[in-house]
Amino acid sequence: MKIRIVLAVVFISIKGLNQEIKSPNKQLIMNFSIDSYGVPNYSLNYQSKPVVKTSSLGLILKDMPDLASDFQIHEVVEKIVRDDWHPVLGEYKTIENHYVEYFVELIQKQTKRKLNLRFRLYDIGLAFRYEIPTQDKVNYFIVKEEFTQFNLSGNHKAFWIPGDYDSQEYVYNETNLSDIDVMSLDMNNGIGMKGPMSKSRIQSPVMMKSNDGLYINIFEAAVLNYPIMHLDVNTQTFAMQSHLVANAIGDKAYLQAHAHTPWRTIMVSDDARKILSSQLILNLNEPNKIEDTSWIKPMKYVGIWWEMHVGKATWDYAGSQNAQMAQDAALTPTGKHGATTENTKRYIDFAAKHGFDGVLVEGWNVGWEDWFGNWKEEVFDFVTPYPDFNVEEIRDYAKSKGVQMIMHHETSGSVANYERRLDRAFAFMKKNDYNAVKSGYVGKIIPRGEWHDGQTMVNHFNYVVKRAAEYQIMVNSHESSRPTGVHRTYPNYIAAEAARGNEFNAWSNGNPPSHETILPFTRFLGGPMDYTPGIFEIKMSHYDASKKEQVHTTLAKQLALYVTIYSPLQMAADLPENYEKYPDAFQFIKDVEVDWDYTKILEAEPGNYITIARKTKGKETWFLGAITDENSRKTELKLDFLTPGKKYKAIIYEDAKDAHWEKNPKAYKIRTIQVTAKSKVKLNLAPGGGTAISFSPIN
Amino acid sequence: MKIRIVLAVVFISIKGLNQEIKSPNKQLIMNFSIDSYGVPNYSLNYQSKPVVKTSSLGLILKDMPDLASDFQIHEVVEKIVRDDWHPVLGEYKTIENHYVEYFVELIQKQTKRKLNLRFRLYDIGLAFRYEIPTQDKVNYFIVKEEFTQFNLSGNHKAFWIPGDYDSQEYVYNETNLSDIDVMSLDMNNGIGMKGPMSKSRIQSPVMMKSNDGLYINIFEAAVLNYPIMHLDVNTQTFAMQSHLVANAIGDKAYLQAHAHTPWRTIMVSDDARKILSSQLILNLNEPNKIEDTSWIKPMKYVGIWWEMHVGKATWDYAGSQNAQMAQDAALTPTGKHGATTENTKRYIDFAAKHGFDGVLVEGWNVGWEDWFGNWKEEVFDFVTPYPDFNVEEIRDYAKSKGVQMIMHHETSGSVANYERRLDRAFAFMKKNDYNAVKSGYVGKIIPRGEWHDGQTMVNHFNYVVKRAAEYQIMVNSHESSRPTGVHRTYPNYIAAEAARGNEFNAWSNGNPPSHETILPFTRFLGGPMDYTPGIFEIKMSHYDASKKEQVHTTLAKQLALYVTIYSPLQMAADLPENYEKYPDAFQFIKDVEVDWDYTKILEAEPGNYITIARKTKGKETWFLGAITDENSRKTELKLDFLTPGKKYKAIIYEDAKDAHWEKNPKAYKIRTIQVTAKSKVKLNLAPGGGTAISFSPIN
Repeated sequence: MKIRIVLAVVFISIKGLNQEIKSPNKQLIMNFSIDSYGVPNYSLNYQSKPVVKTSSLGLILKDMPDLASDFQIHEVVEKIVRDDWHPVLGEYKTIENHYVEYFVELIQKQTKRKLNLRFRLYDIGLAFRYEIPTQDKVNYFIVKEEFTQFNLSGNHKAFWIPGDYDSQEYVYNETNLSDIDVMSLDMNNGIGMKGPMSKSRIQSPVMMKSNDGLYINIFEAAVLNYPIMHLDVNTQTFAMQSHLVANAIGDKAYLQAHAHTPWRTIMVSDDARKILSSQLILNLNEPNKIEDTSWIKPMKYVGIWWEMHVGKATWDYAGSQNAQMAQDAALTPTGKHGATTENTKRYIDFAAKHGFDGVLVEGWNVGWEDWFGNWKEEVFDFVTPYPDFNVEEIRDYAKSKGVQMIMHHETSGSVANYERRLDRAFAFMKKNDYNAVKSGYVGKIIPRGEWHDGQTMVNHFNYVVKRAAEYQIMVNSHESSRPTGVHRTYPNYIAAEAARGNEFNAWSNGNPPSHETILPFTRFLGGPMDYTPGIFEIKMSHYDASKKEQVHTTLAKQLALYVTIYSPLQMAADLPENYEKYPDAFQFIKDVEVDWDYTKILEAEPGNYITIARKTKGKETWFLGAITDENSRKTELKLDFLTPGKKYKAIIYEDAKDAHWEKNPKAYKIRTIQVTAKSKVKLNLAPGGGTAISFSPIN
Repeated sequence: MKIRIVLAVVFISIKGLNQEIKSPNKQLIMNFSIDSYGVPNYSLNYQSKPVVKTSSLGLILKDMPDLASDFQIHEVVEKIVRDDWHPVLGEYKTIENHYVEYFVELIQKQTKRKLNLRFRLYDIGLAFRYEIPTQDKVNYFIVKEEFTQFNLSGNHKAFWIPGDYDSQEYVYNETNLSDIDVMSLDMNNGIGMKGPMSKSRIQSPVMMKSNDGLYINIFEAAVLNYPIMHLDVNTQTFAMQSHLVANAIGDKAYLQAHAHTPWRTIMVSDDARKILSSQLILNLNEPNKIEDTSWIKPMKYVGIWWEMHVGKATWDYAGSQNAQMAQDAALTPTGKHGATTENTKRYIDFAAKHGFDGVLVEGWNVGWEDWFGNWKEEVFDFVTPYPDFNVEEIRDYAKSKGVQMIMHHETSGSVANYERRLDRAFAFMKKNDYNAVKSGYVGKIIPRGEWHDGQTMVNHFNYVVKRAAEYQIMVNSHESSRPTGVHRTYPNYIAAEAARGNEFNAWSNGNPPSHETILPFTRFLGGPMDYTPGIFEIKMSHYDASKKEQVHTTLAKQLALYVTIYSPLQMAADLPENYEKYPDAFQFIKDVEVDWDYTKILEAEPGNYITIARKTKGKETWFLGAITDENSRKTELKLDFLTPGKKYKAIIYEDAKDAHWEKNPKAYKIRTIQVTAKSKVKLNLAPGGGTAISFSPIN
């Protein structure tokens, strides 16, 4: 890939500079200035529309003067960069990276300390970060708070979740900024682990829509050695202010110059589809650092997991018998343990028969009797299976069937314990042919006083990924801090949860039908999610007549999610016996791919609907997914993304006429038609419904 | 070893019980009672003298009712136990373990919760602990404070150091209890890492002497999964109260029933020597858990260490070049680096020539440019040597000379980093034939907010020892929490620092001449100390004429310390060139042993003098050390510890007539005489002086 850099160096030493910078297509305009107190300010316009009004920047430090005022500009460098690249796995074979960079070197007049601001203006949005260069007067320093303002221009509609230090597993709230009120939410929502919250503190990414039709998203990229940024919203002025997640003693970040913060991003467009197709977050991360990536492979998998969520099986072997790690050998099985050798072989057989790459087994290891809610340091040792799970036998059986086993490491939040055992755990995995791990962090963090989203934990999640890369292990972290594109740098960070996944539908108030139409505008911007779609037995009354819980979609929408959710790791989450009841619908899950040459966002409106088409990596097949919220939807799609002149067989998996997520969720139909790039296709989505289409060329 | 147990079971359900229990020799009498509030109380008398007046016991819990009052007795079991044992390494081949146990099962009337108290009454003192048995109503619980009183009977003289959460490296203060005042101390004392302190909070062990001639010591044993206990002293009433070291959020201990606290100990005697010969702390620890102990060996060693303290060499290779772990390869050497291949070979040659077992090398690994005082998480990786330290070449050279290398792991307090790298560090050691590690913890602890003496760190120090045992590695921890006899259970925990060592003499106000006469009554009660004696070039002006610092002893006393300090790991700390100047005095260090069949405390008075004789493990040789404080001392010793009928050659290393720790510290003389068990020998100790004697049988 060629890199073209145009340099325009400007030397400036005057006060009161007000510099205007434009994105490559000139549609986005940033103004930068230093005010009379020496405070750096920026503002952002989309064409003539204000997006961010004049907003201040600065860092509040501990035990030393702040880096927030008294600045003058030492030097400014502006350049335009084009630096396209190819991800190892992804939505696009080639990712365009094109921006105007505006780099400002500031000097604090009294202290003579240096602070640099690096802005990157893309057509889709603005990114900037603070950089503290190597200098005599600053070496080690502690960030007490980051003072970054996003002074929004109006009372936008926002899709937001509470600024909880410990969890992002919330349903999105759709209100105007003025109506944000965390304390008014119903917290009986199934979240096992909640941390500190505040009335008008929300999480980023926050998706917004202005009255004048702009889609605005505030987020961050490349969070490394720094806490997660939440946003304090002023519900009167619509100014947002960064709030970093604290550590055990209230500090935010420990840094050493040279250092920099993560990128703060403001995406903006008058077309919601451009937010979804943006690769801004990935572009702001460092290039891939793993030399040999041949072992990093996309993966569809099944596993012993949903049967625990529906109450058919248990993670634990012996119930609550107060077992201490592997020390208490005399466990009496309850008979409901899911992770048995026999059951695992059944899943391996199923995976082999239907072409799945992997099998996940949760509850295989000693510790589950006594793992939840106890803030206990020594729960799991990650190497001791229950007596009914024969690791070697399963290893050999899986190998004979050509199926990869996926290891599960639940830490219960005891990171101290996990880190000290990590090398042993990974060595055990490799010895037993496991090349991927699903990790879990359900619990209050140990080291005690730390939070899931603090600097310590951000470092932990990234450490595990780096260490895993040395073992050639892929990582799928659950209950981690939400991704910010770091999988560009470490592509073995194949997926994460870090949002409200499908399992909440099994035992809580669940995820409303709009949920999956919001996630791509929020959580997915940071990286792939292991959402675990594919539930065919929608209603939990199937398992227990007294249960009212259900998945809040139709069956056809569960299929469409395999396309609308981007992830190179996708689970077919339901039970084998449920798939076997619906082999025709199951065929789509068997066929759908998880790694792509190209993605086209056909339709999108956050909270309402999304339609996406994707071309398989290295093949001529395409897959399309369309989903809607609680409202039914009719649409007609042009198939002009298909290769002109080619004929395709399109298999359409859609809601039956009377389908409805609540009243009749399993009613679907399947039809096959022949199409070309000139064809149009009409879709009818039921309330809470969806459509999935596979396109294969006819030779 | 035979275990004789006499059982006397007593069932009691009445209120207001006042039970009297006597030690095996009936000299020590404990009373136990429950007061009208249901608070458990104990008191302790030595013969007719009160030692501890009626004192309360209880645990203050977080988020649940305390376990401190409203108790009634459910059952009492009294028994007498004799259970002698053999340590792997030690002062005695056989350790007598003989006590009366008094076990009280309490029930809290309102809550129906159970709390047990286990008392053990030895002839030398009382020990007790709290036990929380398995029960329905208590599973996980958090100790907010332990409410253990030691209500002393008078305004005793005390040898105390401040109750600092982070360091024990203080000079002992000798005052009455009424005059304890931490805030009045001169804190310009060379201690690199100080934590929270309080006006009248002191550390245990605290050594006291009453006006009526009793020697009283309050300490603890077997601190596992619990914080270190400091003592809050009421300077008016002379009541002491336990104060546990807190964690990052102010909690003290996280426990799960069944659980117990460490033992709280009160030693008492009218003979100071009995305090020193007591094996109470070891007896209260669990037996050895390491099956094969063949690799646990006593060790005399030299090393690249003192030359850094005297300013001749540096730990770092490149000075302050702000190096980040092993990442910055381009370090420019300053030329003063101590840990070079060449210098190491010189020490190996010296060790081989003079019969030392090991060579320690500090400053061998990348990180020292940037390690101190920065609260930095990633400093050392423990596997990357500086470019001038060839690990393989040194490994092969040491092997060819029959010398063991001792690895050094400075963590700078970043325990998070050390634990996640520990397996790699130990594997690297074994690959390069290192079987012993000296660890260091100079710095504020990471996880941030934790303290050296909190539960998290206690667990860390014990974890490292256990993990090291799995690699067959011996551990010598510096700046750890002070030992409490856990080396009985893990005898590879061969030594620790955890007190003010000899190096403070090189660059601070140093250790006064009385220092080494107090340590055996305090710090050494918990376990061996790597004090690093043997300094021959006493005055630092030898290295730099402008320096005023010096070791506060005579040269002869430096020899005597090898006997008065018990440790199976002893360093000959001075430089090879200094030893070569005084080969006759050096001969004692070469000859002295470090593992013993038997130890006899001949004379002892805390703060004044100590004289100890020890018989070599498995040999007929004896060694004697006598030390005094700043006052000269004359004494005559009976040698009746020697085997009757045998003749011995005694080489006496003593202060010259005009020797004086300050004015003439290097003046010594050596004389050889012939003695038997019937002989007496007169000693003349100079101010700050000492005498060392080796006895070898004449065949």
